[in-house]
Amino acid sequence: MWIQKDITLPQYSRGFHIITDEVIRSISEVKELSVGIIHIFIKHTSASLAINEGADPAVRIDFETFFNKSVPENSPDFIHNDEGPDDMPAHIKSAILGSSLSIPIRNGKADMGTWQDVYLCEHRNNPTRRKLIITVQGE
Amino acid sequence: MWIQKDITLPQYSRGFHIITDEVIRSISEVKELSVGIIHIFIKHTSASLAINEGADPAVRIDFETFFNKSVPENSPDFIHNDEGPDDMPAHIKSAILGSSLSIPIRNGKADMGTWQDVYLCEHRNNPTRRKLIITVQGE
Amino acid sequence: MWIQKDITLPQYSRGFHIITDEVIRSISEVKELSVGIIHIFIKHTSASLAINEGADPAVRIDFETFFNKSVPENSPDFIHNDEGPDDMPAHIKSAILGSSLSIPIRNGKADMGTWQDVYLCEHRNNPTRRKLIITVQGE
Repeated sequence: MWIQKDITLPQYSRGFHIITDEVIRSISEVKELSVGIIHIFIKHTSASLAINEGADPAVRIDFETFFNKSVPENSPDFIHNDEGPDDMPAHIKSAILGSSLSIPIRNGKADMGTWQDVYLCEHRNNPTRRKLIITVQGE
Repeated sequence: MWIQKDITLPQYSRGFHIITDEVIRSISEVKELSVGIIHIFIKHTSASLAINEGADPAVRIDFETFFNKSVPENSPDFIHNDEGPDDMPAHIKSAILGSSLSIPIRNGKADMGTWQDVYLCEHRNNPTRRKLIITVQGE
Repeated sequence: MWIQKDITLPQYSRGFHIITDEVIRSISEVKELSVGIIHIFIKHTSASLAINEGADPAVRIDFETFFNKSVPENSPDFIHNDEGPDDMPAHIKSAILGSSLSIPIRNGKADMGTWQDVYLCEHRNNPTRRKLIITVQGE
């Protein structure tokens, strides 16, 4: 059994945001599966996906702080600057964090750990609404 | 055909460790599959999974050295410090390395390269035993 | 329906290279699938795979510049140096970027975003021709 859905996320500002509910809500058919995989893909090169701690909002702030320092804007190193100083760092952050996630299904649920949530990692100052493709397979 | 197994790993200390055998041993049904995918998921936000060089233990030491320098502890930048100085760096290292792997199956085996092994990347000083979910699909 | 193919890529120099066409060309059966997943796995520990911007070649140059600065060669930190100064940095870059990708299939095509392409990330000075395993499942 295959399920495939498109999601256009709400407008999120630059930073790290929990989108677990938006993802799960779009694939209610998972309830009927005893085993499977949820695959989440972001169709962009300046935003990414990650799984991490969802309980303390400070974690997401620290993520943004760390990645801004680790991949600095206005670096004289970068030659691709067409869309502003946040452009090339956004591409690099996206590649480091990745453009897809896959999560096991067990007994009708995404079987993540207690503290795990799905993050949208938005790396642009003025992003568009981001598009995801969710592909589920299971039985 | 779907197979799904839980593994609780032995207690590993902070650092990078090879767990290929523990993973493969838990899914002996792979022997019967001519093609498929092994999906490995770690249910934690302060430990991660990677595939890398398994022959020389020095590589794993260098990994620990590099990531400790790259994501420093006791940074005044971090506001999430509830569980000590290794807490927030562990979350960031986990997101960079990732919480899942997927490996192709061919002719009854995980078809990795000669030098590839599965790493548990343990980022905490006093970790619990880590839980994995292994999901296999194939025919 | 499962499809599995081996590709040996042409010789690429150190740096970031677009290989989307080489991957897609090898799996023409995808045309017949309405939904599915393409899984791409690199059988090496010093080269990796990523999805990122394919339109402007400057992006790929900036990727190489960034990762060389971020994971420096000739660091006195590294004890694994058997194969030269590019050896250990190549392992670390590979783990950060990752050894596999998975891309959704919709209506007979890899359903990536407008600007997304598949990168081979070659981290060695004198690499061999790199081997990929492409595993497709769908219906």
